[in-house]
Amino acid sequence: MAGNSFGSLFRLTTFGESHGRALGGIIDGCPAGIVLDQDAIQQELNRRRPGQSSIVTQRKEADTVEIYSGTFEGKTTGTPIGFAIHNTNQKSKDYGHIKDSYRPSHADYVYDQKYGFRDYRGGGRSSARETASRVVAGAIAKQFLKDVRINAFVSQVGELKLEKNYQELDFNQIEKNAVRCADPEMAALMEDYIKAVKKEGDTIGGVITCVAQNVPVGLGEPVFDKLHAELGKAMLSINAVKGFEYGSGFAGVAMKGSSHNDQFNADGSTKTNLSGGVQGGISNGMDIYFNVAFKPVATVLQAYDTIDKEGNKVTTQGKGRHDPCVVPRAVPIVEAMTALVLADYSLLARTNKI
Amino acid sequence: MAGNSFGSLFRLTTFGESHGRALGGIIDGCPAGIVLDQDAIQQELNRRRPGQSSIVTQRKEADTVEIYSGTFEGKTTGTPIGFAIHNTNQKSKDYGHIKDSYRPSHADYVYDQKYGFRDYRGGGRSSARETASRVVAGAIAKQFLKDVRINAFVSQVGELKLEKNYQELDFNQIEKNAVRCADPEMAALMEDYIKAVKKEGDTIGGVITCVAQNVPVGLGEPVFDKLHAELGKAMLSINAVKGFEYGSGFAGVAMKGSSHNDQFNADGSTKTNLSGGVQGGISNGMDIYFNVAFKPVATVLQAYDTIDKEGNKVTTQGKGRHDPCVVPRAVPIVEAMTALVLADYSLLARTNKI
Amino acid sequence: MAGNSFGSLFRLTTFGESHGRALGGIIDGCPAGIVLDQDAIQQELNRRRPGQSSIVTQRKEADTVEIYSGTFEGKTTGTPIGFAIHNTNQKSKDYGHIKDSYRPSHADYVYDQKYGFRDYRGGGRSSARETASRVVAGAIAKQFLKDVRINAFVSQVGELKLEKNYQELDFNQIEKNAVRCADPEMAALMEDYIKAVKKEGDTIGGVITCVAQNVPVGLGEPVFDKLHAELGKAMLSINAVKGFEYGSGFAGVAMKGSSHNDQFNADGSTKTNLSGGVQGGISNGMDIYFNVAFKPVATVLQAYDTIDKEGNKVTTQGKGRHDPCVVPRAVPIVEAMTALVLADYSLLARTNKI
Amino acid sequence: MAGNSFGSLFRLTTFGESHGRALGGIIDGCPAGIVLDQDAIQQELNRRRPGQSSIVTQRKEADTVEIYSGTFEGKTTGTPIGFAIHNTNQKSKDYGHIKDSYRPSHADYVYDQKYGFRDYRGGGRSSARETASRVVAGAIAKQFLKDVRINAFVSQVGELKLEKNYQELDFNQIEKNAVRCADPEMAALMEDYIKAVKKEGDTIGGVITCVAQNVPVGLGEPVFDKLHAELGKAMLSINAVKGFEYGSGFAGVAMKGSSHNDQFNADGSTKTNLSGGVQGGISNGMDIYFNVAFKPVATVLQAYDTIDKEGNKVTTQGKGRHDPCVVPRAVPIVEAMTALVLADYSLLARTNKI
Repeated sequence: MAGNSFGSLFRLTTFGESHGRALGGIIDGCPAGIVLDQDAIQQELNRRRPGQSSIVTQRKEADTVEIYSGTFEGKTTGTPIGFAIHNTNQKSKDYGHIKDSYRPSHADYVYDQKYGFRDYRGGGRSSARETASRVVAGAIAKQFLKDVRINAFVSQVGELKLEKNYQELDFNQIEKNAVRCADPEMAALMEDYIKAVKKEGDTIGGVITCVAQNVPVGLGEPVFDKLHAELGKAMLSINAVKGFEYGSGFAGVAMKGSSHNDQFNADGSTKTNLSGGVQGGISNGMDIYFNVAFKPVATVLQAYDTIDKEGNKVTTQGKGRHDPCVVPRAVPIVEAMTALVLADYSLLARTNKI
Repeated sequence: MAGNSFGSLFRLTTFGESHGRALGGIIDGCPAGIVLDQDAIQQELNRRRPGQSSIVTQRKEADTVEIYSGTFEGKTTGTPIGFAIHNTNQKSKDYGHIKDSYRPSHADYVYDQKYGFRDYRGGGRSSARETASRVVAGAIAKQFLKDVRINAFVSQVGELKLEKNYQELDFNQIEKNAVRCADPEMAALMEDYIKAVKKEGDTIGGVITCVAQNVPVGLGEPVFDKLHAELGKAMLSINAVKGFEYGSGFAGVAMKGSSHNDQFNADGSTKTNLSGGVQGGISNGMDIYFNVAFKPVATVLQAYDTIDKEGNKVTTQGKGRHDPCVVPRAVPIVEAMTALVLADYSLLARTNKI
Repeated sequence: MAGNSFGSLFRLTTFGESHGRALGGIIDGCPAGIVLDQDAIQQELNRRRPGQSSIVTQRKEADTVEIYSGTFEGKTTGTPIGFAIHNTNQKSKDYGHIKDSYRPSHADYVYDQKYGFRDYRGGGRSSARETASRVVAGAIAKQFLKDVRINAFVSQVGELKLEKNYQELDFNQIEKNAVRCADPEMAALMEDYIKAVKKEGDTIGGVITCVAQNVPVGLGEPVFDKLHAELGKAMLSINAVKGFEYGSGFAGVAMKGSSHNDQFNADGSTKTNLSGGVQGGISNGMDIYFNVAFKPVATVLQAYDTIDKEGNKVTTQGKGRHDPCVVPRAVPIVEAMTALVLADYSLLARTNKI
Repeated sequence: MAGNSFGSLFRLTTFGESHGRALGGIIDGCPAGIVLDQDAIQQELNRRRPGQSSIVTQRKEADTVEIYSGTFEGKTTGTPIGFAIHNTNQKSKDYGHIKDSYRPSHADYVYDQKYGFRDYRGGGRSSARETASRVVAGAIAKQFLKDVRINAFVSQVGELKLEKNYQELDFNQIEKNAVRCADPEMAALMEDYIKAVKKEGDTIGGVITCVAQNVPVGLGEPVFDKLHAELGKAMLSINAVKGFEYGSGFAGVAMKGSSHNDQFNADGSTKTNLSGGVQGGISNGMDIYFNVAFKPVATVLQAYDTIDKEGNKVTTQGKGRHDPCVVPRAVPIVEAMTALVLADYSLLARTNKI
């Protein structure tokens, strides 16, 4: 209820602040019998890790996950999987300058208003560092999902927009460039652009496109818990996300029904897929695809005016080690949240019929 | 879990099929002591009602709500509010033609796959008729919220897009035209366009913009249940919705952090509001605004090819009384879901501090 | 959250006051494909109905259930089952005498304290009339459970205690007497005793024993949601219940481990069953059995002293049509709640393994 | 849903096996601003710790809790409190003898049936070691509750039953004897008896009585989530519990309504308290008291017959370091669960009225 859990049957609860002792979580409801590849979990964490390339934050965090429970002799036992990632690179002193003032477009002000005070070190709980726990859980969900393939990639940075359809792209390219764009040429342009923005001490937004393939028909609970509604919530819960669209999305608005409708093939598949793999909130077996819009990171390495707790105007200099663009590191987070939704809804779908 | 409930503390559960005996719901957790204006509830239902103008479906439904419980001597008692709307205009024979075949981009196919069979009459549970129950609950939530003002309006139909900012608009205009566009001139253009589309037997999509004003600071649970994430889920759970964006939304992607950040005034309000009234998932007291994209209605009054249950190709003629464009009637639904989210999060916010 | 829902995957939410227009509920998560026997549902309601014999309240209520949704062509569809029972025998005037004063050991005082005011007619929401909705839902759950046999019976009234083990009893006797005791001789004694108590204008408590047979191994979620913990909560949620014990229960306290342990047979069944069919919170395939203690009904038809809202002493005469002993009519309620728990946990058990 | 969470607004989720790396949990929803006394938390853990006296298991576990998050500058922040207790005394080899056979009246058999296999070391997840996490969370809940006083004590061991009413006892005596009985004389008898049972290699059951005082009026959600129903579930979720009764309990069955009813004083308090502080599922401000029945521990240090996974008969010798009677160490667990329920319902009660 206080918002630190996600999912119902395959449920993740996370804890941890940016500069606390550790962050981590509990996965409750993970079915027994999954042969767990712990390297694959760490591998996903590494994709999210700071310092992995020159266009991401240069903070150093080992981000090593310790699994405390829920596995035995290499397999999940059906009991809760508790895990933690210890913080090793806490430089709390770095944050003295934000202790008493509010950074614009951060959560500083609202946390103080809501809770009466806040852990100001590195954003505390509002830091995207929390998403490391999601990546761990998503990596486990992926292993449960097995046949489902989830690929996310950067499709826009600033005004640089990949106009190709995802079917024209080679997902094997994604991990071959620092931006995680599925198109090598566009990736190079994006990388240069991010570097230029970084040099200005500024930041820029981006879009991630995610494609889930081989999803069985029938996932999704109609009415309030439609599959795409839960995916949308999952994505909107990621730090810095401002928008979500699936299938035809906002562009579908300008289409007429006669051309928007996806005609059936004899096997129940459809000739087109403007539905984005979901109809009436339920997966129809076609590829599920959606876009997630990220705003520019709020922390700019420039001087800016703001207020302190008493409302006095103060001038501050942004500093620290921050991402000039969040999307390259957000790709594994988008995939993780997608996996969590699909794992949860896979379990739910076991209960629909006698 | 089966997806027919929304909210946690102020929780709506709905039931009912398009052509069943009745639809309705239960609101659990509505606080005691609200002086309930039952006319205002019916008034909201009337805004959603079929047959209200020439650009919406010409079905006739009284849509009269009966409240069974939870009120006494004109006030809510804190016990669950059960209500029903009896279906009075069931023409089940109209749907014989879809009994054995699947309408493209409807939920027919996936329901059959998921549940083994379906109530095919008028879409059954997948019909947007279910949203009548949401409007009832939203109307009650509005009365609980009291000082919060929620205004939704149509901001795009097909390619006709209202380029004005919501601050430039007069919300009093919304109910004065059949489209529910806040700009009278644009409303006239949209109405003509919808009529033309209707004449073709076709349908068209649209966008609804919603603005919630006077929302207190501090609503929203950080991490997974961010205020905008729950709003996004609420909107994406409405039939035909393909996208959601709040604040700067997809356009924010192309902005730099230095210009995207909302600078503070001395009182904690911000000079700009690209954040859309939510920071770190928590309301900051500024206007909350967002856009909701609706696809064109799938039912077109034209001949089309599809398949039957055995996968045989069949040719069908779309018929019945349908909306050529869903957005005029969806305006009160968007408002209702917004009210439900805000009511729920208002109650949650009572529990944050000692 | 506000406490009007029970279960997670097979979930019942109820509404309705004793003297409101109607009471009823929504069952969400009932699997599709159950051939629904509506007569069997009404039959269960009839077992709970007022006026069925001379030892229960003489109120007249038809208690006819109307099912509004969730079934089609005689089968459940997997969508929510909404239902209502209209109140037909509301004699609100009867309750003028309790409008301004608090009946001892009723919920009058606490409702006023908690909610600020209350629907005083017949106890409002605190009336056991709410359990009619549970009986409807339980009857549907029974049809889902199919092979499971649930039999409850009265095993004690006042000091009259059936000392026989349930295995010595013939469950076919239960419905053959007004008390619903499985032993005809004891039933006669109990009936006489209840009549005598009634004549005094007094009331008496009782115990119901419930036995669930043919329950598959593996139901129950260990740790907090142990099968017997949920059964206990289910029973304690029934009006007037003061205690719950399963298997060896309170008597097991005085036993030593060496004689309390249930030794295994080769097939995994056990030679004894002091465990009551549940070990570690999970069903082991043996009979589940438990006792439920009911206090004497608080409404006595005698004069009594109490206070009014201002704390002034008032003397009142208990009147109306009330049960001298609640257990005969509570038998179907105990069975219904048992069925709801088992249905819910049966669905949950589908998700334990890959 | 998988049963490892307790509570809704003040919610504990636990993880960990008896012989895994660590056990622990996350408390989500703990309000911000509690000045946290970490020594008091450890103190509660020490009350539950093995090896604390000669009548409990002689295992050695430091049981030191590490708090990872959710506190800052000595106060709770409103964000989730993650914590862990590392296992330091794992002697997994001790459990080779139970790897392939099922201990009678343990959870071995049902875990294998439910999940396909199990972590057999020390009972794995089914071990009462999990309750250490509950004690940590309960200790924090107690600090939130502040004015509420919760005292549990042993009131029966085997046939040795304390016949005094709790009002006649001095709660300060509880921690002064190894049994945690509030009566010193009875404590001595009980202690001797437990030692005698231990010498036989046998075990014995017991009863814990718990009293919660100074609970405000109005806690408890009527209908399914009655305060005593949730307390009952909380208690029944503790390992080895077979029964729960509150107020007059099973003894109330034999009483008549005229003598069972609690007459009001002018201030709303009652002259008697057979209701046990709860009416209609809602606290009425009087003392809440209840009894919890524990069966004898299943592990006896004697030879016994059982079966292996293939159903073959095997003879085994019980060994290891076990409690001859569970109730002395269960006292802090009962208090912890009581505190968790009251904390949760205190938050819920903030949402009842406008």
